[in-house]
Amino acid sequence: MAVKRLGKQTVRLESAPAVAAGACVVGKKEGEGPLRKWFDYISEDSYFGQKSWEKAESVMLNKCFALCCDKAKLVPSDLDYIFAGDLLNQCIGSTFAARDIPVPYWGVYGACSTMAETLSLAAMVIDGGFADCACAMTSSHFCSAERQFRLPLEYGGQRTPTAQWTVTGAGALILAAHGDGPRVTHVTTGTIRDAGVTDANNMGAAMAPAAYMTLRAHFEDTGRTPADYDAIITGDLGEVGHAILTDLFLKDGVDLGPCSTDCGLLIYARRGQDVHAGGSGCGCSASVLCGHVLQRMTCGDWPRVLFAATGALMSPTSSLQGESIPGICHAVALEMNGGEGNC
Amino acid sequence: MAVKRLGKQTVRLESAPAVAAGACVVGKKEGEGPLRKWFDYISEDSYFGQKSWEKAESVMLNKCFALCCDKAKLVPSDLDYIFAGDLLNQCIGSTFAARDIPVPYWGVYGACSTMAETLSLAAMVIDGGFADCACAMTSSHFCSAERQFRLPLEYGGQRTPTAQWTVTGAGALILAAHGDGPRVTHVTTGTIRDAGVTDANNMGAAMAPAAYMTLRAHFEDTGRTPADYDAIITGDLGEVGHAILTDLFLKDGVDLGPCSTDCGLLIYARRGQDVHAGGSGCGCSASVLCGHVLQRMTCGDWPRVLFAATGALMSPTSSLQGESIPGICHAVALEMNGGEGNC
Repeated sequence: MAVKRLGKQTVRLESAPAVAAGACVVGKKEGEGPLRKWFDYISEDSYFGQKSWEKAESVMLNKCFALCCDKAKLVPSDLDYIFAGDLLNQCIGSTFAARDIPVPYWGVYGACSTMAETLSLAAMVIDGGFADCACAMTSSHFCSAERQFRLPLEYGGQRTPTAQWTVTGAGALILAAHGDGPRVTHVTTGTIRDAGVTDANNMGAAMAPAAYMTLRAHFEDTGRTPADYDAIITGDLGEVGHAILTDLFLKDGVDLGPCSTDCGLLIYARRGQDVHAGGSGCGCSASVLCGHVLQRMTCGDWPRVLFAATGALMSPTSSLQGESIPGICHAVALEMNGGEGNC
Repeated sequence: MAVKRLGKQTVRLESAPAVAAGACVVGKKEGEGPLRKWFDYISEDSYFGQKSWEKAESVMLNKCFALCCDKAKLVPSDLDYIFAGDLLNQCIGSTFAARDIPVPYWGVYGACSTMAETLSLAAMVIDGGFADCACAMTSSHFCSAERQFRLPLEYGGQRTPTAQWTVTGAGALILAAHGDGPRVTHVTTGTIRDAGVTDANNMGAAMAPAAYMTLRAHFEDTGRTPADYDAIITGDLGEVGHAILTDLFLKDGVDLGPCSTDCGLLIYARRGQDVHAGGSGCGCSASVLCGHVLQRMTCGDWPRVLFAATGALMSPTSSLQGESIPGICHAVALEMNGGEGNC
């Protein structure tokens, strides 16, 4: 049995790699929301100076990466690896953002769970002795996502009450073998869970069972309970999915408690921003983690956080062919006081 | 500096994880080619019993995974991780193939370099002590790829001389911490290299510079030369790309020699199968590696192989928006006699 393994889905990172810096860049709407003060850069221009929304997304992510390097006082070539991915077909948001960066590149696809997946892998390659520092990053853009996954924006389609609003945002985080920042102590990797939901306008319901499975595995594998965390933050379940997750745990007799929240609930005002069930997209959990969450950890509000980003692994083609929506969730434990020695 | 690091792009795997089993499933056309005897299963039905080509691709990959588990004498739940990805939008080929498999799942996107990327990461998580065994797998399907990336098949468009034929095939490989099979000793991770090629019907030319950069880094980082390998096998450069790669090395005064070949050249007959510049797709390097290459290693023909799968990181959208095609290449050294102690 691999020595770092706890149970079936979790590994403990003995060296607990530390966050050297995090950065987040968002669009105008996100900048008008309650997390405004935590973002590094808010663009008034949804095109980020480009001619298409896809190019805008790449420029946004590239800008976020550059900001993150600046904050970590590193130049890109100091990095050993970049892990990145996004929602666009063939992940062009991230590949075009990284094409001028001279750093070994791992492309990942985890849909909206990408921030947790890239963070997990970056932490593992450092803990495994393969790297001193690595970047984890991802993005989404409301306009590029809408026209790819749903309808042309110009069509002005009506949104259902369970629909979520794709965040225009990017997050990047540099992990290092040593440092004083929040440390990654545990990684719980999700299995794919298909609960049979076929409504592509109800991603929260499709992803909630995956979040439940991964969080339950995390608690079982580590022997921890929800009370061991100051905040349990799921990726982008939104209002519908977060309520389902809470109910699923209540059926087990487990109360996730007031520390349980969701990036899709945090990023927009519940009243007034007209986002229906909340935010979504890779950029949702990425921009909330790399700004708000890391800073609240660093300032002492939340010494111990469980970050569990969720992804819906369908495509418009699979939905049109009548397939249900598989979900996935990856969880990462972040702690301000370093790893613990006895779990 | 991380102890396992050699130079900027390569890591040495001290434990040299071993291949427990490899399996490959292909379509009819591939089964008519020169590698026929190395494939585990050849389907006469391009639909694999399904109603769409996308579902066919998932079923093909799932079948390949099951075969690989059988050959390794494992049940799926024995695996610690699966690394998988494919070319379809949102990687539905692999996510739908894996949705009933109760194993922690890492989705990757490396276009046609996916087999090398999944193999690299699987080897690293085992060498890093996070897993005892992990599966790396990927697929492509001519029909699902053509209609997504190019034109409806029914249109019967003329193919250009530089075009390659997307392989209908899947490859899966299970790596374990111990065993007698070929061992992964080095992983060289590519950076994204955009040489400015804009012709989406000339992927070989777009990817060759990336292959050159990664192979050059591998030789520099390890102190090895092409003569240290019994076979240097690139992913799917095809005839055009492989000639460019050979020329780029010749300009450096380096002759890759007769041991240099390409999965896109090996999988189809150069005359008679009408594939123009050769094979391509994630399934090309995957089905060649997991059948032909592994078996030629095991039987003693090729004790030391450098496997370097290549990927073109564009999408139809990026091409229509006038973007050039970024390429990437990841290289993995496989050796029958275990790791070496002195590089």
